[in-house]
Amino acid sequence: MPSLFPPSFEALIDRFASLPGVGKKSAQRLAFHILSLPEGEAEAFARTILDCRQKVHTCPVCQNLTDGERCAICRSERRDHSQICVVAEPKDVASIERSREYSGVYHVLHGVLSPMNRIGPDELRIRELLERVAAEPVSEIIMATNPDTEGDATAMYLSRLLKPFGVKVTRLAYGIPVGSNLEFADDATMLRALEGRREM
Amino acid sequence: MPSLFPPSFEALIDRFASLPGVGKKSAQRLAFHILSLPEGEAEAFARTILDCRQKVHTCPVCQNLTDGERCAICRSERRDHSQICVVAEPKDVASIERSREYSGVYHVLHGVLSPMNRIGPDELRIRELLERVAAEPVSEIIMATNPDTEGDATAMYLSRLLKPFGVKVTRLAYGIPVGSNLEFADDATMLRALEGRREM
Repeated sequence: MPSLFPPSFEALIDRFASLPGVGKKSAQRLAFHILSLPEGEAEAFARTILDCRQKVHTCPVCQNLTDGERCAICRSERRDHSQICVVAEPKDVASIERSREYSGVYHVLHGVLSPMNRIGPDELRIRELLERVAAEPVSEIIMATNPDTEGDATAMYLSRLLKPFGVKVTRLAYGIPVGSNLEFADDATMLRALEGRREM
Repeated sequence: MPSLFPPSFEALIDRFASLPGVGKKSAQRLAFHILSLPEGEAEAFARTILDCRQKVHTCPVCQNLTDGERCAICRSERRDHSQICVVAEPKDVASIERSREYSGVYHVLHGVLSPMNRIGPDELRIRELLERVAAEPVSEIIMATNPDTEGDATAMYLSRLLKPFGVKVTRLAYGIPVGSNLEFADDATMLRALEGRREM
């Protein structure tokens, strides 16, 4: 039986299917979409991929993504460079920035410690953080890894490493999400919310 | 506030978000995936898009996708070229081929008549079908558009156009899907299943 689609079309389906969360059916739909684009648009798509891959690298200071020499936040003079918020992934920077509350700078680890997935301290940008703390005057380091087992373990590990530098290390507050309902809070969250209670 | 991601990364997110069924969050995840690929892999992705867009065109005979001069099915000497199965989309060819029952050739309309979406006869590959029937000896034309309003209307329209050629025009059978349950058959399907009943 001859192949059902031309080889170069099958190749594009396979490429799309290799993306996370894209199944064979969706990949086929995406490939048909590419075929239906005006040729200039398809070229622009390909160019955007190359462009992004070639230009985007990590900021030498905070390890966040940038296509300049240093990232926009590290370059900014309006940010407090003595306050460093440590996050696992570049997208976490976006989440925190959206709150418009934080005016310090960041450090992106590019992952969390995960023995199960063989991710140890050497796979993360931990050395870069220690070098930063040794070289610059730092007043506070806020651990903003996710409040799960791996995120907690990573925060704990880092806080021990940072102890010798005598810098204040804090952790984001745990508790009931704003706008949520006590009824839906799981036991662990409720426990942390009680532990973290503050006088009114 | 500075932009949260570098411009060339935002551009890639926007490209992915322009694909059908891909939301902003998925687009972000896909863009991060591209960034995590080895550079050669990202280049290969871009090249596959260009390659597919440049090489793949429609077969001059059956209008199915091909990257050769004619498609593999039209080139095959083992297929019955006097039997033409008319389908709406290239992916329908794949569905019918999977049954391994059909040995004729195809004609892909690239859509169905849809006055709502302003798709009339001139937007479909209908002229090419009529030219084929006029030029080649054709014994049967099987209408295999979807069994819905637009698919039925398109099949009906084509069968009228083909009447002057004196060729036999058939329609795929309607009925209860194999492995399904009578309980779940809707009224219209049940009606068609009764109408189309055959002696055992």
